[in-house]
Amino acid sequence: MKIELGADVLKDNNLAAAYNRRLFKNHKTLVINIMSSPGAGKTTLLEETIKVLRGDLTVAVIEGDLATDRDAERLRSLGIKTVQINTVGGCHLDARMIAKTLPEFELENIDILFIENIGNLVCPSGYDLGQDYKVVLLSVPEGNDKIPKYPVMFRRTDLTIINKIDLLPYVSFSVEEAEKDLEAINPAAQLKILSAKTGEGLENWVNWIREAYRQCTEH
Amino acid sequence: MKIELGADVLKDNNLAAAYNRRLFKNHKTLVINIMSSPGAGKTTLLEETIKVLRGDLTVAVIEGDLATDRDAERLRSLGIKTVQINTVGGCHLDARMIAKTLPEFELENIDILFIENIGNLVCPSGYDLGQDYKVVLLSVPEGNDKIPKYPVMFRRTDLTIINKIDLLPYVSFSVEEAEKDLEAINPAAQLKILSAKTGEGLENWVNWIREAYRQCTEH
Repeated sequence: MKIELGADVLKDNNLAAAYNRRLFKNHKTLVINIMSSPGAGKTTLLEETIKVLRGDLTVAVIEGDLATDRDAERLRSLGIKTVQINTVGGCHLDARMIAKTLPEFELENIDILFIENIGNLVCPSGYDLGQDYKVVLLSVPEGNDKIPKYPVMFRRTDLTIINKIDLLPYVSFSVEEAEKDLEAINPAAQLKILSAKTGEGLENWVNWIREAYRQCTEH
Repeated sequence: MKIELGADVLKDNNLAAAYNRRLFKNHKTLVINIMSSPGAGKTTLLEETIKVLRGDLTVAVIEGDLATDRDAERLRSLGIKTVQINTVGGCHLDARMIAKTLPEFELENIDILFIENIGNLVCPSGYDLGQDYKVVLLSVPEGNDKIPKYPVMFRRTDLTIINKIDLLPYVSFSVEEAEKDLEAINPAAQLKILSAKTGEGLENWVNWIREAYRQCTEH
């Protein structure tokens, strides 16, 4: 007897992801799965993005964490419906965790659902959650060798965001080199360069979301 | 039939870790397992630490990466024996991977073996490699909420290093708050505060290693 556990786990995950995706499509909810290393600025980016979008779109968040609900509290304080998934040490979100949270939302009234994944540049990349887009943040102080060193993550994402560009004067990071590395690994990937803290470049990312939402509601 | 895979995997790991530990003890080799988020500065810290230690101690490195041997090349260029473990996407090092590399080293001639784990603040914490000490780096731009948000890692390590303190003027990070959070989660843990880039505080860490090596060779 041979047990191929890895394959089974992913098969189960893909079934749940397909279920989630159908629900999201039926309700014309745009779903964006945001991944990064710990501390790359996912929550700050969400806060600043939501402040711009909430004027005309209804946004909700699924917040993944190993422990604490600090990030969920930050988003709730903006008046945004936020459901916390606490993985109790687990290293990624999977599609069944997402499926279990969905009864908490009125999807028919939600335009955009952000999923903030666990801070981990490795494991989350393997799990389809049923999202429309996978986005990965790379923060400038991490250094731009992260793209070739964590290729699975950058190869599987639709959009890479280089965050914390306000720190460019103080660290060794070449945006050009990051662009080349990303082009080599994932030529179809888009790239946005911004600082969630200062707001520089935020508009390009927000416009990308608006366009994605427009396409999502057209079909 | 119930298959408790998690428990079996860890049991196998612990057997290999015990084997490694016995070998290290027999050869009086001090072994330090260094973990962190991607881009917290593990390789830079190793480079600067080795430049100080190599005058009077023989140092070697096991370098864990998902892909590329960039970090191993950086250490080899210092004339340091470095064995690369490429996990091909795997999210942590385990004790069997370490055991397989050991025939590559003449442990009787190695005083200190550093193991640079995969950049991941979650998965590596669960795997004993047979090391004497587990060290975790937290870099200032990641923010100090990482300690409560990734408690398993910080609870299981002997020493926490706060790195990149040269960036303190440019980001929101409170060393005092990090100290309190660490004290709450792991009162026995030691804390070193430094910048591998500027060298500030490096001496405290190097002295800690020298003292650990002295104790390791005494028994």
